[in-house]
Amino acid sequence: MKKLKVAMVGGGGGGSFFGRVHWRALSLDGSRELVAGVLRSNPVAALESAKEWGIQGFPDVPSMIRAWKKGQVEIDYVVVATPNHAHFKAAKACIEAGLPVLCEKPMTLTVDESEKLVALVHAKKVPFVLAHTYTGHPMMMFAREMVRAGQVGQVRKIESWYSQGWLATALEKSGQQQASWRTDPKRTGISNCGGDIGTHAFVAATWVSGLSVKRVSARLNTFVKGRKLDDDFNVIAELSNGGTALITATQIAIGHKNDCGFRLYGTTGSLEWHQEAAEQLIVRRPDHDESYWIGSGAPITSAVVSSYLRAPAGHHEDFFEALGNLHTTMERLVRRQRREKHVPEAYPHPGVAEGLAGMKFVRAAVRSSKAKGAWTVV
Amino acid sequence: MKKLKVAMVGGGGGGSFFGRVHWRALSLDGSRELVAGVLRSNPVAALESAKEWGIQGFPDVPSMIRAWKKGQVEIDYVVVATPNHAHFKAAKACIEAGLPVLCEKPMTLTVDESEKLVALVHAKKVPFVLAHTYTGHPMMMFAREMVRAGQVGQVRKIESWYSQGWLATALEKSGQQQASWRTDPKRTGISNCGGDIGTHAFVAATWVSGLSVKRVSARLNTFVKGRKLDDDFNVIAELSNGGTALITATQIAIGHKNDCGFRLYGTTGSLEWHQEAAEQLIVRRPDHDESYWIGSGAPITSAVVSSYLRAPAGHHEDFFEALGNLHTTMERLVRRQRREKHVPEAYPHPGVAEGLAGMKFVRAAVRSSKAKGAWTVV
Amino acid sequence: MKKLKVAMVGGGGGGSFFGRVHWRALSLDGSRELVAGVLRSNPVAALESAKEWGIQGFPDVPSMIRAWKKGQVEIDYVVVATPNHAHFKAAKACIEAGLPVLCEKPMTLTVDESEKLVALVHAKKVPFVLAHTYTGHPMMMFAREMVRAGQVGQVRKIESWYSQGWLATALEKSGQQQASWRTDPKRTGISNCGGDIGTHAFVAATWVSGLSVKRVSARLNTFVKGRKLDDDFNVIAELSNGGTALITATQIAIGHKNDCGFRLYGTTGSLEWHQEAAEQLIVRRPDHDESYWIGSGAPITSAVVSSYLRAPAGHHEDFFEALGNLHTTMERLVRRQRREKHVPEAYPHPGVAEGLAGMKFVRAAVRSSKAKGAWTVV
Amino acid sequence: MKKLKVAMVGGGGGGSFFGRVHWRALSLDGSRELVAGVLRSNPVAALESAKEWGIQGFPDVPSMIRAWKKGQVEIDYVVVATPNHAHFKAAKACIEAGLPVLCEKPMTLTVDESEKLVALVHAKKVPFVLAHTYTGHPMMMFAREMVRAGQVGQVRKIESWYSQGWLATALEKSGQQQASWRTDPKRTGISNCGGDIGTHAFVAATWVSGLSVKRVSARLNTFVKGRKLDDDFNVIAELSNGGTALITATQIAIGHKNDCGFRLYGTTGSLEWHQEAAEQLIVRRPDHDESYWIGSGAPITSAVVSSYLRAPAGHHEDFFEALGNLHTTMERLVRRQRREKHVPEAYPHPGVAEGLAGMKFVRAAVRSSKAKGAWTVV
Repeated sequence: MKKLKVAMVGGGGGGSFFGRVHWRALSLDGSRELVAGVLRSNPVAALESAKEWGIQGFPDVPSMIRAWKKGQVEIDYVVVATPNHAHFKAAKACIEAGLPVLCEKPMTLTVDESEKLVALVHAKKVPFVLAHTYTGHPMMMFAREMVRAGQVGQVRKIESWYSQGWLATALEKSGQQQASWRTDPKRTGISNCGGDIGTHAFVAATWVSGLSVKRVSARLNTFVKGRKLDDDFNVIAELSNGGTALITATQIAIGHKNDCGFRLYGTTGSLEWHQEAAEQLIVRRPDHDESYWIGSGAPITSAVVSSYLRAPAGHHEDFFEALGNLHTTMERLVRRQRREKHVPEAYPHPGVAEGLAGMKFVRAAVRSSKAKGAWTVV
Repeated sequence: MKKLKVAMVGGGGGGSFFGRVHWRALSLDGSRELVAGVLRSNPVAALESAKEWGIQGFPDVPSMIRAWKKGQVEIDYVVVATPNHAHFKAAKACIEAGLPVLCEKPMTLTVDESEKLVALVHAKKVPFVLAHTYTGHPMMMFAREMVRAGQVGQVRKIESWYSQGWLATALEKSGQQQASWRTDPKRTGISNCGGDIGTHAFVAATWVSGLSVKRVSARLNTFVKGRKLDDDFNVIAELSNGGTALITATQIAIGHKNDCGFRLYGTTGSLEWHQEAAEQLIVRRPDHDESYWIGSGAPITSAVVSSYLRAPAGHHEDFFEALGNLHTTMERLVRRQRREKHVPEAYPHPGVAEGLAGMKFVRAAVRSSKAKGAWTVV
Repeated sequence: MKKLKVAMVGGGGGGSFFGRVHWRALSLDGSRELVAGVLRSNPVAALESAKEWGIQGFPDVPSMIRAWKKGQVEIDYVVVATPNHAHFKAAKACIEAGLPVLCEKPMTLTVDESEKLVALVHAKKVPFVLAHTYTGHPMMMFAREMVRAGQVGQVRKIESWYSQGWLATALEKSGQQQASWRTDPKRTGISNCGGDIGTHAFVAATWVSGLSVKRVSARLNTFVKGRKLDDDFNVIAELSNGGTALITATQIAIGHKNDCGFRLYGTTGSLEWHQEAAEQLIVRRPDHDESYWIGSGAPITSAVVSSYLRAPAGHHEDFFEALGNLHTTMERLVRRQRREKHVPEAYPHPGVAEGLAGMKFVRAAVRSSKAKGAWTVV
Repeated sequence: MKKLKVAMVGGGGGGSFFGRVHWRALSLDGSRELVAGVLRSNPVAALESAKEWGIQGFPDVPSMIRAWKKGQVEIDYVVVATPNHAHFKAAKACIEAGLPVLCEKPMTLTVDESEKLVALVHAKKVPFVLAHTYTGHPMMMFAREMVRAGQVGQVRKIESWYSQGWLATALEKSGQQQASWRTDPKRTGISNCGGDIGTHAFVAATWVSGLSVKRVSARLNTFVKGRKLDDDFNVIAELSNGGTALITATQIAIGHKNDCGFRLYGTTGSLEWHQEAAEQLIVRRPDHDESYWIGSGAPITSAVVSSYLRAPAGHHEDFFEALGNLHTTMERLVRRQRREKHVPEAYPHPGVAEGLAGMKFVRAAVRSSKAKGAWTVV
């Protein structure tokens, strides 16, 4: 089986974080390799970074696509890992050219851009995966399977959250790169906390439950003085089946690192999952609790979830492996589209539809908060 | 030191639960004893129950008060443990007579009643303690002391919750006594879930932080068909210092028993406490977490909190001991008012003011929910 | 139902700890009360302490027994809470007189004394309960029931432990009373750590499993210089069914408070319990774990265990309640011997047989350690 | 920076597990790649497996070394991932040829072989890393640094363990490949449980503390009928500084997966670490506990430990990343020996010395157990 060739856009700056993470995640399985990229927005820096990384560099996305069309570089799919504002342009160019895209979230800067991307992906029938890393955790996939199979009955209520503490002070004033672009409306859009991590909590609530959010009542806060965007994000949401979801995110919770998770309450049982203890899924019944672990055996995972596992129970797969699973999904989509043999089914990880829903959700939350919590249609 | 004599109103029914709990809690320290009571609303049943319990029985509260005035029974304070709707009448009669009251929560059926009780207590200068049991947990007292001492800086945000699963089905239809009166507007008031357990979450947020709630945006749900009151209660609250609190309660969270707790985020650190692991207080700092336990030594507790402890660290004090601490507070208030010697300081546990605030909070939440989440002044 | 009258021997000193604990535990249920005692070894001090506690005082045990025989004091059973060396004399005197005894552990100073007590109790047919407090935790009782019912198959291996840190320094040199008598061979016997807390680990291993220890290989350590007895106790034991138990105790584990617990491995499942999280029993199956809580409902507890519960799930019963359960067992034994009506079955908590086994176990461990770990018959 | 080229011996069988794990672990950082191998013992199967994996295949180790000497294949180091009995021959051949080796544990089949390997490695000055995967967990490295810096004082006692349940039944009779060779004395040596996972517990105790084991008293059990080697391994060990270690391993603990960890008790504090919650190190002080996480900031890690981290706190690095760190250590040793520039310091992960010590430890434990627990010099 030939390795897939991957190209990356963005992610190569000195203070960047996620480009390197994608590199590790896609390298993990030996079936994909990073070969090319436009690693920075500045053309000169882009070429330098590529050299450092030992891959084929390009000054900009159009150049890379031209080279690919001419057969000067082999590319099977593209990872878009730029700051938020540059997602759309890069993803659009790739998809128009017919190149599959694994795109960082939030999908675009505006709802309008997201709608264009949805239309384009549907028209071009090009594989598109949205990098909601945590949906790659096998126990989050397993939770989704349990809900689908009715093992907790009808969903009544969901609490999902993402708590961090790294922006509890005005870190952006120190010049820290991550803090700087995330709190800048031009590069991040209308919401910092909601867009960056609230979307994770949104996906945890909707993707796992199979429900959508119809209306929201929100309160966004900016606790750190002088900050231009929200650093605290609180939403009460009405679900498509009439249930309620509490979807919250905060960046001022000192001591919390990447405390993302959900609790889902059904008519016959409850589920609980924490990103920082990702290997375990807690299932609560009226008279006892059960805990399941990755790889513990048949009762835990559906066949398709099992096909993503790399290690036996007790040897945890975590962050890099979860992101690796999204690359596995992309790989399977690419190979199946090419009708390669013996390619397992791809798990339905978030794509353009979920990306658009997330953008609309954040927009509705921002509007509701400005309208003093008025219930706002998504 | 002579034992204080305690009388109880309510709590004696067959399916009753909390009367017996108060009996154990007040007996725990050997310095108080239950001697009399009007244990049921039906006069005959009241006398029968008293006989069973081995205490002096009375058919109704006025009879008991008359007997006390005549010196036919010795009473130092009265525990009011009836269903909600009967709190006011019993408490009012005792206070008017000059008898100190330890009253179950929510304090009354209506805000109006609560206001009258506040006025009466202030006028009569009679000790009054509201039985918010969890405020008796030493680590909840210690958390309050830490906030007061500025050890987590300025409070920005609080999450407090109370999750249960026992009303996930229509238990009231089976005739279960606890479910029956709690879901009946006549005996419970305008809110079931909010009044019964939302008030605990409210007290956790406000009593620990020293802040009050100014306005709320709420969504109350009734998930079980045919139920007349809420079984799910969600509030976003604006705090007196401009901060935000998420105050939630639910009775449909299957597998959750008495999962009450809070997280408090300050400008220099965070606190976390869980009623079901009550002996531990988690303090989060930017670079590590700390855990403190009851009795572990000096750094943990202020002198007044220490004076409530009964056991060394690792031998947990829990539910009965926490409620016992509220009786200790009442005992200290009574003895200090009488100017007995060597009586330690009473901890400022919730009283009438907190009871009234809780009633107003629930009323505002019910109103906001009916007004589609409109921000409503408390 | 008339309250049982309880007398106490020992436990009344200023720095004493357990006398007060017994007082609270026996008062908890309203069906027993402390009325008399010989609270200290010094006759004058004994009378003074009794006055302070508000109970009928006696200068020594013989005086108290004489008064009881003359009907000058009503006593239904006696709690022996002295330092170890005085257990035997007090218990012997009571039993010879026909007074039931709830005795602190370790049962006596020597195996010889324990054998005499066993013979005496058998001859006199007087109720005797050994105060292994933790066996009063409902989940430890439930674990024993699960093993008896074969729910984890045949027992292969047990790990039981008790880790403390309070004697990590030479605390006894500071005059601290608890440290002082526990490290003094005259008052404690041949082993400090083994006798004081190793016996708890021993009971956890044997009482829960229903197995006995046949032979041991031990290593006892004295880590703190100048200390005359062990402060660290490690035993590999051969069980009566050929299985193996690791039974350890230590007092130098800084930060560990009363970290007592066990893991039991059977041929079809495993159990795990921790005294510091006493409300939960973990049951492990090959493909998932289950957690049970006190009061969660039918699947958890046998009828007899249920009859000991005081609170619904999520409101934890802990240290005082567990000890209270041993008093409940004594109460039931006393009332049933008198053929009172409607007295529930008493749970088979540890008595003289377990006390003797514990003494022999510690003696064998001390001998094995001196013989360089040679396997030594118990 | 040019990628290092890695070859693998063993690990390619259908039911094999660890070959694939090494492949992922070495691929993770983009600075190493698997290029060649002798993946199976059967020459034909070896070539087939290599083809499947897409690497250059060789029928046996001598062929591969010859090809390397002739420049027909580029190899920077070799991973030895065969069953235990084949480690020695493969490692010896590579080292004699001057090829660095990252070898699975236990290092060899016999102590004699290990001694020869130690001598050879010292003579040839070839980098050698022993694949004690868990020593690659950053928090285990950090624990070692804390002990070295005296932050818990003098080490008194260590408990280390490895509990599994997968061999609680006679799995080897089902033909399962992993169970089959591990319980076969010819391929595994004198101990199954002790050699396979007891050595992990041994390394946790000695490598972290910086102490060695002088003498042991052991009890090995075979709980599953018909099994030829131990499946349960219990050792009381005397440490080089006079302290005591309890080193245990079991494969019959149903529901335990890879429950490896340690508790270390010093004169001023205690440490605790669990492989299945590897991102956290618990530090206990007399009056509170502290928890540290990977990446939480400066107080946690020494510079050299920090240089191994890949993700910020809250995004856990786990099994593959820990093994990846051992490959990083090997990479650094190789690059530093070649005097490449800017290569960070290699952490002192276990090598031949630790491998030999582990072999001697297991041998002494087997001997002690046969001699009824007699203290046996290592």
